[in-house]
Amino acid sequence: MKLNFKREDLLNAINIVLKAVSSKTTMPILECILIEAGTRGVYLTANDMELGIETKVSNCEVLEEGKTAIEAKLFSEIVRKISLEDDSNVSLSSDGTIVTIVCDNSTFRIQEKDPDQFPELPSIDQEHYITLSQFTLKELIRDTIFSISPNDSNKMMTGELFEVQGDHLKVVSLDGHRISIRNTVLRDRYEDVKVIIPGKTLNEVSKILAGDNEKEVVIFFSKNYVLFKFEDTSMVSRLIDGEYFKIDSMLSSDYETKVTVNKKEFLDCIERSTILIRESDKKPLIMNIEDSSMSLKMNSMIGTMDAQILIHKEGRDLMIGFNPKFLLDALRVIDDEEVCLYMTNPKAPCFIKDQEENYIYLILPVNFNPASY
Amino acid sequence: MKLNFKREDLLNAINIVLKAVSSKTTMPILECILIEAGTRGVYLTANDMELGIETKVSNCEVLEEGKTAIEAKLFSEIVRKISLEDDSNVSLSSDGTIVTIVCDNSTFRIQEKDPDQFPELPSIDQEHYITLSQFTLKELIRDTIFSISPNDSNKMMTGELFEVQGDHLKVVSLDGHRISIRNTVLRDRYEDVKVIIPGKTLNEVSKILAGDNEKEVVIFFSKNYVLFKFEDTSMVSRLIDGEYFKIDSMLSSDYETKVTVNKKEFLDCIERSTILIRESDKKPLIMNIEDSSMSLKMNSMIGTMDAQILIHKEGRDLMIGFNPKFLLDALRVIDDEEVCLYMTNPKAPCFIKDQEENYIYLILPVNFNPASY
Repeated sequence: MKLNFKREDLLNAINIVLKAVSSKTTMPILECILIEAGTRGVYLTANDMELGIETKVSNCEVLEEGKTAIEAKLFSEIVRKISLEDDSNVSLSSDGTIVTIVCDNSTFRIQEKDPDQFPELPSIDQEHYITLSQFTLKELIRDTIFSISPNDSNKMMTGELFEVQGDHLKVVSLDGHRISIRNTVLRDRYEDVKVIIPGKTLNEVSKILAGDNEKEVVIFFSKNYVLFKFEDTSMVSRLIDGEYFKIDSMLSSDYETKVTVNKKEFLDCIERSTILIRESDKKPLIMNIEDSSMSLKMNSMIGTMDAQILIHKEGRDLMIGFNPKFLLDALRVIDDEEVCLYMTNPKAPCFIKDQEENYIYLILPVNFNPASY
Repeated sequence: MKLNFKREDLLNAINIVLKAVSSKTTMPILECILIEAGTRGVYLTANDMELGIETKVSNCEVLEEGKTAIEAKLFSEIVRKISLEDDSNVSLSSDGTIVTIVCDNSTFRIQEKDPDQFPELPSIDQEHYITLSQFTLKELIRDTIFSISPNDSNKMMTGELFEVQGDHLKVVSLDGHRISIRNTVLRDRYEDVKVIIPGKTLNEVSKILAGDNEKEVVIFFSKNYVLFKFEDTSMVSRLIDGEYFKIDSMLSSDYETKVTVNKKEFLDCIERSTILIRESDKKPLIMNIEDSSMSLKMNSMIGTMDAQILIHKEGRDLMIGFNPKFLLDALRVIDDEEVCLYMTNPKAPCFIKDQEENYIYLILPVNFNPASY
């Protein structure tokens, strides 16, 4: 095999597939990037057996077809450092044992791995799919990914529900203390789909997506896999098996107290209160909601914080406590200038949502002793 | 005590003294910042018993004089987050038990510590001193600090020699494998001084100095302490006791081979070669110096690198090996476009220095088997 790359294009492709390189594995071949040069161009592939990524390298000259596998981190470092000019020419050749990489005045020679040991990406039946803009997909992930569960004790909570009904896509994540829901309207109508995509996959997809509103991504759904296809890149991931939680019964549109508040001011006050929290001393943030103002109080071993915020209130006065982190996570991804909170009583969930229900954040309150506030 | 600060000025002062706050100590008072408000203004002080910093807060209104001590990290976080506007007004008051900090709509109340327990900074006899620009001091430190020894087994190697003779200041650091020397001419003549300043102190001084060429810093030397005074800040540090190494006998101006090389090209090639080095497998970089070119070779378990650089050579051909890190450290702080290396044989030290000997870097070569290169 003998190839000529433009350094920048090779580096871009490496950075994309690096996201699927196994960091801890007993199979050394999974730490490699597969390079395949054929008539359709030059492709890089990485596969950690959960997530696989394949991408085409732009502007590559194939002098001799073939394939090889190179330890990914080493390959990435060599290409990054072999020249500091983006448009330098990098030549790569393989004799079946040694890969030689030449650029400017430097030559690297490294052992290659047997490319035939590299596990092929699963082929996906491309019957069921949806199309949306990269920007929208990136937003949907950003707005929900924070409330997946970080630990594996309930596998389903480590993923997100993607549910397609007609021209409507709903994305849901939950971790037992809160639920995050994002609804969006697609440009076409599609067949119904209901799958659970691993959170790790969505995180990686989100990092690679350019986030362009003009550029599209196609998501193909099969029984066990999901495939994200955009520009020159394909990402294949396993799905999480099982029936997702029935969340509709947990949602309610009744409320006794509705608060409208400036999002930034609310967010800043909550962030401030977390100064007084230590890992070992989890304290709730107490919101005391009255006619036109809301007081926020935090009492911890370290000290106290009091803050006053002007609000617009409908319904009853209420005193309610929350884990401030859960409020912060939701507020940080809301782009609106004002947010509305819907509450019933100090034991019932609070809903932060917009009029059109593009987003719904359900957060459970925490118990506290009202006498001490 | 009752004070009004401009948030930005208070935060600047906190950030300066934070550098001398003890992170691990059995004396909780050393984790605090002392605040003293008197007729000469408001001063913040921190002291970890090795290094002490005192700074004056600008634009502070003293409504009631007094003093208090507050846990430094907490204080810093509160002032950072209590408002996002630099020019917000922060009021701070103390009743001897509780400190109350108010800004915009938020109020923090935290326990204060007994300010009388705070250890006073040593008072320094201000007889012997030198004056130089902040820029120069910052440069002298940057250019030498990398070759102090990181471990305490030889205390003197963890500091730097500051030697004043007439109008000449020499700064030296060494770690057993290399010596870094910076010479500079002062604007006045001073009394002779020879002290060893702890590397940690120099690191912190360097971080706080604005690095301005117009602004000055005065360094006072006493028997056991050094005091850096600039703008509204004083930093006092213990000195390291003892007689510094006699380095003059290690320096020599004889050489058999002189190489002149483009610094950036040389540096890039060496950086590239370190890709192939792992902690467990320390390999030398071999330089093969011939008439108008130098080849750099790295052979490791991972692979090989070869690079060619054009040079100007005087004297004999030479093959010599170095720990690439030592070359990198020196080259990174040299601002010249071209550097000169002076060598004698594969066992004798290499000198990287300029004509005027503003800088001299002595690096010991490492043994290698010439047959394998």
